[in-house]
Order: sequence, then C-alpha cells, then structure tokens
Amino acid sequence: MKLKQLAVSAVIAVAALTATGIALGDAGSGEASPIYGVKLPDGYRQWALIAPAQEAEPLNELRAVLGNDLAIKAYQDSTLPFPDGAVLVKLAWKHVQSPEFEPASIPGAATTVQVMVKDSSKYAATGGWGFGRFINGKPADEAQHQTCFACHQARVQNHDFVFTRFAQ
Amino acid sequence: MKLKQLAVSAVIAVAALTATGIALGDAGSGEASPIYGVKLPDGYRQWALIAPAQEAEPLNELRAVLGNDLAIKAYQDSTLPFPDGAVLVKLAWKHVQSPEFEPASIPGAATTVQVMVKDSSKYAATGGWGFGRFINGKPADEAQHQTCFACHQARVQNHDFVFTRFAQ
Repeated sequence: MKLKQLAVSAVIAVAALTATGIALGDAGSGEASPIYGVKLPDGYRQWALIAPAQEAEPLNELRAVLGNDLAIKAYQDSTLPFPDGAVLVKLAWKHVQSPEFEPASIPGAATTVQVMVKDSSKYAATGGWGFGRFINGKPADEAQHQTCFACHQARVQNHDFVFTRFAQ
Repeated sequence: MKLKQLAVSAVIAVAALTATGIALGDAGSGEASPIYGVKLPDGYRQWALIAPAQEAEPLNELRAVLGNDLAIKAYQDSTLPFPDGAVLVKLAWKHVQSPEFEPASIPGAATTVQVMVKDSSKYAATGGWGFGRFINGKPADEAQHQTCFACHQARVQNHDFVFTRFAQ
C-alpha cells in the first residue's frame, strides 16, 4: 500500500470507529456475574442515555439506562430484536432531596449497576440476553440472577425482553 | 510534509479530536435563545450523562443532564470553573407511570430542553454562562430567559453556577 493510501485509510479507519461507535473494550472487566458470565463493560459510564426512570419505595431510586453504540443505533432505527453485541447498562442511585433547589430530587449513593448483553447464541435459553447485577462493582449472588429473565419474559417479551424505551 | 508523516499526523489529529471530545458542530443549529443567542447544540442527545433528576409537582418531570466532552472532563477532573466551550444540556419529560412495571415511573412527553454554554468573555455579565430554554425545538421567550441567571446565582454560585453534580 502506498503511503498516500495509508494516510487516507488510516483516517477513514479511525473516523469509522468513531462514527459507528465500535467501542473497544465492550467485553468488560472485573468479576463476572453468576449464571451468565456478564462483566461490567469498560467505559459504560460514557455511553449515551436511553432514558432516566424513578423507582418507588421501598427501593426509592433514580435510575438511568445507558447503551453502547449498537444499542443506541437499534433504538434509533427501531430494530427489534436488538442485534448481537448490544449492551444496556442501568445505573441506580438512592433518590435524595436536592439541598439547593426544593422541588428537585437528585442521585444520592449508588446502589446497583445492572447489565444486559445481547448474544443470541450464548444466551439462547434466555431470549438472547445475559444479565449481570453489580453492587459496588461486584456481582450479586446466583439467587438474584435467577430472577432476571423470568420478570423480563413475563412483562416485556414483546419488546425483546427490554423494559426501557428511548426517551425522545 | 512527507506522506508517512501525513499519515501519522492524520491519525493523531482524528484520535485527538475523539479523545479530547472537541465535538464538531457544538455551535448548534436552529433558532437562538433571546438575550444569550444560545442554540440547541448539534448531536447533544448522544452526549454522556451527568445525572438524572426528578422535579416535583407542579412540573412533575423526570430529567437528565448531559454534557459535551469538555464538560464531562471538567467533572471528572473536578475542574471549577468550567472551561470555555463546556456545554450542559438538561432534557425534561413528564413523569408517567410505567405500564409494564408498577413501581417504576418513566419519561412521558418531552417538555423542555435547557442549555448552558460556557464562554467567559461573551457571557461575562452572567458568570460566564449563556442560557437557552427550548420547547419543541423553539426558544422560550425573553421573560423566561431573564430568570435563568438570578436563580443559578442565588443558589449555586459556589459551584460555578451549575446545579448538577456528576452521579458516580
């Protein structure tokens, strides 16, 4: 390859990585969840927002669901089922009063980070999704992971087992 | 410049744009806000999440504040005041009951999108911040924009006039 071609190719390659959002390191790090072997994805805190939510007592949480670029693109294109490689991460915090603005409540202490990874082969028995629930970066126990799919299956099977819709 | 140097420089330039988050098109598009001339930034919906929030009645909203890469880096580095070019965008939706999961409430109809742009020269009279409040993509009227800075000044001057903290 000539150097001029190399220059052009290099720019295109980097630009493509940026544009299509192939997130290097989606595989994750740290301890894997029981049953599914799902890890916290690297860099997930920088992912785009799908939607916030609130969960009532007793959990009393503010939440936000983020998605990797494959997941965001699927939402934008209304692609269902989600493609393999799509990853959703739900962050949750205790819901506390703002000390600075009376009508507002804001995130307090972080509670859980919950991950869904789409791999239609690996997770064929659970709708193509693997689940991970993390507390302080450590996966919750097996009993907690046994509850994930049943609830998603019972309530949102018609949306590829995903509760959250994209907040326009 | 030799072609090999060009190739390397091109890669570095594109990578630097990506890494430092100089978002091409932050200038925005559409109609500008009164007083400040702030537009809705291009591509803001893909920006990283700073924090969700809830606003009580009568507004009854779920909210999420996103930031461009300069803003996110400032949060991560605990940089105050925010650097020129930092942009914050608060999205707000009506807060509605999830039809699929009783304890959860989720975003309903979008209400406002509110923008803060840091430019310490242009907006020197208002703490370095320009404000824009948009409803259905159109800026709200001048009277509404006259209220922005006074409230931020009264309540969060010690945090560079910004309410939202980064939700870890």
